[in-house]
Amino acid sequence: MTQVWLWLGCISMTVGSIFFGFGADRAKGKSWQIVYCLNFFICAIAASLYLAMIFKQGFTYIGDRPAYLTRYLTWTFSTPLTLILLSYLGRTSIVIAASMIGADVYMIVTGFVATISSKPISNVWYIVSCGAYAGLVYLLLKYYRQQAEQHYPRSKKTFKRLLTVHIAIWTAYPIVWILASTGFNVIGSVAESACYTILDVAAKVGFGFLALNSLQQLEQAEDVTQYQQERALT
Amino acid sequence: MTQVWLWLGCISMTVGSIFFGFGADRAKGKSWQIVYCLNFFICAIAASLYLAMIFKQGFTYIGDRPAYLTRYLTWTFSTPLTLILLSYLGRTSIVIAASMIGADVYMIVTGFVATISSKPISNVWYIVSCGAYAGLVYLLLKYYRQQAEQHYPRSKKTFKRLLTVHIAIWTAYPIVWILASTGFNVIGSVAESACYTILDVAAKVGFGFLALNSLQQLEQAEDVTQYQQERALT
Amino acid sequence: MTQVWLWLGCISMTVGSIFFGFGADRAKGKSWQIVYCLNFFICAIAASLYLAMIFKQGFTYIGDRPAYLTRYLTWTFSTPLTLILLSYLGRTSIVIAASMIGADVYMIVTGFVATISSKPISNVWYIVSCGAYAGLVYLLLKYYRQQAEQHYPRSKKTFKRLLTVHIAIWTAYPIVWILASTGFNVIGSVAESACYTILDVAAKVGFGFLALNSLQQLEQAEDVTQYQQERALT
Repeated sequence: MTQVWLWLGCISMTVGSIFFGFGADRAKGKSWQIVYCLNFFICAIAASLYLAMIFKQGFTYIGDRPAYLTRYLTWTFSTPLTLILLSYLGRTSIVIAASMIGADVYMIVTGFVATISSKPISNVWYIVSCGAYAGLVYLLLKYYRQQAEQHYPRSKKTFKRLLTVHIAIWTAYPIVWILASTGFNVIGSVAESACYTILDVAAKVGFGFLALNSLQQLEQAEDVTQYQQERALT
Repeated sequence: MTQVWLWLGCISMTVGSIFFGFGADRAKGKSWQIVYCLNFFICAIAASLYLAMIFKQGFTYIGDRPAYLTRYLTWTFSTPLTLILLSYLGRTSIVIAASMIGADVYMIVTGFVATISSKPISNVWYIVSCGAYAGLVYLLLKYYRQQAEQHYPRSKKTFKRLLTVHIAIWTAYPIVWILASTGFNVIGSVAESACYTILDVAAKVGFGFLALNSLQQLEQAEDVTQYQQERALT
Repeated sequence: MTQVWLWLGCISMTVGSIFFGFGADRAKGKSWQIVYCLNFFICAIAASLYLAMIFKQGFTYIGDRPAYLTRYLTWTFSTPLTLILLSYLGRTSIVIAASMIGADVYMIVTGFVATISSKPISNVWYIVSCGAYAGLVYLLLKYYRQQAEQHYPRSKKTFKRLLTVHIAIWTAYPIVWILASTGFNVIGSVAESACYTILDVAAKVGFGFLALNSLQQLEQAEDVTQYQQERALT
């Protein structure tokens, strides 16, 4: 059954990356090219992850539970791209964008250490990782929102939706982690795979479409005039 | 015999990095400093790779064939520098340069997985890796060329030569891979080392000189006036 | 006793990262935000390193001596941030800043290989690593100083102090390495831990305060007028 979910993940990510890849190649205007391109790489990286998991590569046994190390390696590359995508849409300052990526990588690396540690040490690392995630959410809700609304005063709703979806999906990951064999062992190995696959498809393919839709809204809100002028200067 | 080729590689890369390093220190003008500097790091990284291989470090046995893992680690750093070099010469837009580097790293990481996988799984990863390379070639021939010719309308020949040499050398790598023990096992271990050494010296030291020569041609073609003006603004 | 030093390191880095983190959140002006933010991540990364070492994670035995591999992994991330901090204060050109980071990462990766190699191969890598460090010092004393003094002609003393402290601390690391079991085995395992902890706290928390103080001096020297004007353009 786990294999079925992994195949579903691999197919979804491959289809997503083909769609976004063609979009990038045919994009009209630089903004569309950048958003399509980021979505393409996010899905393409995830497609490789699922292919590796289908082949049972890149995982090890910690005690008697399987730990997919490859997940963390690919997340280290794909999640910063998602934050770059958000930062591009909201025109976040470099120091805030870099800090978000820093908190994100910190979260993934310590989450990886939590996964390969035995209990109770794994719990300490889990808390550290959640602390990094709390920092990331703080940056998103305070600085990211503030800067996005400053640049696009007419598009508050667009960013509210974008942030709500983003934080809802990302918050589900540590919940699955703590419920699965990595934590309290409440849900089984198949359910864990199913949850991660659904979350991954939502966070990568689904969020990719939301990002495209958001860009369209930003342009339609006629913030675009100011937007394009300033882009032209950079 | 393999050791002889590894020593030749190490010496060539060391001599190359010393030459380019001195060039960077004495460069007149920012453009020359950047091109020398990139060449220096490309050769210096490769010199370390060959030193590690001489010491028989960073490789493992997959079945009965030796797999040099260090090659892939150093390529992950040195090949993006080559693409940055190309992008600097052609003044490629950030999104295309980043996409080329993304495709390149994707190619190397999946090529690495192909190398450490046993057959027939290794063949699947090989195809994925070649797919990434095809994407990179597409970006080079379509977007890179287009943008370079737009910025330097009088230097089409320079970029044609640069791209031809670059693609010819890089295409030889997957051919060696599939002919060696990693693929069909048609050529032996010594021939494999010899091929990789010759290709590495061509792709790093040789291509470095070609890049310097191309920069000179670009400046001589008097595209330089427009070039320097725009550089000054950035 | 080693554990005591590791705990001292962990607590110092945690306190440091809390202090700098609050500073970043309350910073007045972009320059202060950037300097606080870089200090925060430098200390936060080191705090994780010490936590891992307390838990006896991420190290292996080379012969009969323990080698903390995690040190090198975290240094790969934290030391480039220190060089970015220096480059930001001195407004170093991108090619010099990138070259310093390149030399730094080269030094750490080859130092890591030296640590996991057995003698006498480890000595060869140690010399290569010291060579990269010599290159970094050369870049700092020639290009970094020159560019910093050009941008802040009235603040030569500030940069002299910054460079002296920076180079003095960093030069102590290879000395500890060669005296400890990784080299001549003159000092014991506890003394090695003590030295690295003291150096780490000096290089991260201590240097962080020095960086803040330097920024204040730069602003007070009224170089700030020219400084802010040019910043505003970027």
